Amino acid sequence: MPSTPEIDSRIRESFGRQGLMATLGARLVRVAPGEVDIHLPVAAHVSQQHGFVHAGAVAAIADSAAGYAALSLMPAGAGVLTTEFKINLLSPASGDVIIARGRVVKAGRTLTLAMTEVFAVSAGAEKLCALLTATLMRIEGRDGVAN
Amino acid sequence: MPSTPEIDSRIRESFGRQGLMATLGARLVRVAPGEVDIHLPVAAHVSQQHGFVHAGAVAAIADSAAGYAALSLMPAGAGVLTTEFKINLLSPASGDVIIARGRVVKAGRTLTLAMTEVFAVSAGAEKLCALLTATLMRIEGRDGVAN
Amino acid sequence: MPSTPEIDSRIRESFGRQGLMATLGARLVRVAPGEVDIHLPVAAHVSQQHGFVHAGAVAAIADSAAGYAALSLMPAGAGVLTTEFKINLLSPASGDVIIARGRVVKAGRTLTLAMTEVFAVSAGAEKLCALLTATLMRIEGRDGVAN
Amino acid sequence: MPSTPEIDSRIRESFGRQGLMATLGARLVRVAPGEVDIHLPVAAHVSQQHGFVHAGAVAAIADSAAGYAALSLMPAGAGVLTTEFKINLLSPASGDVIIARGRVVKAGRTLTLAMTEVFAVSAGAEKLCALLTATLMRIEGRDGVAN
Repeated sequence: MPSTPEIDSRIRESFGRQGLMATLGARLVRVAPGEVDIHLPVAAHVSQQHGFVHAGAVAAIADSAAGYAALSLMPAGAGVLTTEFKINLLSPASGDVIIARGRVVKAGRTLTLAMTEVFAVSAGAEKLCALLTATLMRIEGRDGVAN
Repeated sequence: MPSTPEIDSRIRESFGRQGLMATLGARLVRVAPGEVDIHLPVAAHVSQQHGFVHAGAVAAIADSAAGYAALSLMPAGAGVLTTEFKINLLSPASGDVIIARGRVVKAGRTLTLAMTEVFAVSAGAEKLCALLTATLMRIEGRDGVAN
Repeated sequence: MPSTPEIDSRIRESFGRQGLMATLGARLVRVAPGEVDIHLPVAAHVSQQHGFVHAGAVAAIADSAAGYAALSLMPAGAGVLTTEFKINLLSPASGDVIIARGRVVKAGRTLTLAMTEVFAVSAGAEKLCALLTATLMRIEGRDGVAN
Repeated sequence: MPSTPEIDSRIRESFGRQGLMATLGARLVRVAPGEVDIHLPVAAHVSQQHGFVHAGAVAAIADSAAGYAALSLMPAGAGVLTTEFKINLLSPASGDVIIARGRVVKAGRTLTLAMTEVFAVSAGAEKLCALLTATLMRIEGRDGVAN
């Protein structure tokens, strides 16, 4: 397994190439082997029609957290693609910031299962607002699909 | 069931309040009873790290298409919230535009199942790139949750 | 692609080895390239606590229909394993017989997406009662995992 | 919340009415508020074609464990129905016994999210072989749908 500084820089560089994360205003806050946290400040530009954070924005940061948790356990040069995810939305995503905490459940040779818990933080209090499970596929030797 | 012009204006008004759709650059292209199409031009600001459209952006328009397909069959004043969705990503979302076509599978009193097929369009040719199934919940009498 | 009689005999032989299908009383009724139907008579030995067919029994025939639809498009000798499925249960599975109709949505090199519609048949009338989407993985060269 | 002996007897009685659980050979091993364990001995009559336990049998005990975990937190007289579940299958279900451990993630007024971890036990060693998330709906006042 690559050392932690190598993992950290690889994932930060890849996250920086995700145009959508910058567009949403999401920040990569924590990287550890098999675990990645992403934060999204609540704002009007990521809302749905009732003013909550859109399920698609919640899913986007939860999927990225799951994907990078999976990538953190793969060898350098491998790429990761999501093949499927399911998200259960437990309560409206609102408050000050939405935190997605992804972690690997099982890393396989080809497929990895990861899970992301998503919390809505309001005045410092965290509330579980969504749960995602995702299958990530390891890609090797395909041009343009690394990290 | 409300008449088609009523459905159309209700959904266009609600879509206009989804800050995320404007942020992504998504457009509401077609509204019919039980069916809604949303288009998303491929662009760098919705990308993941390899240059494809981010799974979260694909999921966002697919979820909105499913949700509005469900809302189109609900009485005026009812609100719709997604309780869960699963998306299978079949091939990289790339090309010129991504089209999400949502339709109701079964409309129940409380819960509606909808499905969205997502196509990547390149030089006029469509390719199925994702499939979403979503459960939508009808909300009535909750302040701020209408349409 | 193998000819239809070859597909038919390969899948019937494999189905015959599924102890669970015999235990449930399920029958393989139709095999075509990319499409498989399985029928399950409603009976007390497959029930849940209210007398409906148990969601697990519905899922079992829906998963087998999806898996064999996928296998029908794979080369002889390949084996198929389900990596994930989601099922939405739309109405209680009751009546005379439950019919699962599986079909391939997209056949890939490693992963295939299949969908199964499940109908409850009562006095000859069919009602959609469940919808499953499944990812099937093609396995080659692993001892004991063929067909 | 009902006291533990009341929960225990209510769930044991309901489990006893699930014809499918008896057919599979599944046993209700542990009931606590929000947590239920079900065991399934590995046997030929619940197999798929390669001799592993069929994904449908794994899903059946995982769904029952999730459903009873949810029911354990509902008032007496309420009934529970699964509206959807997703299961990820991580490794072949084989060995001596399959253990499904269900627990409530969030209990809501109408919908409850539960998760079941499934372990394959071989010579006393446990290995995570599947993960299920399920949405359970609370039903009240419908004839025949209690517990």
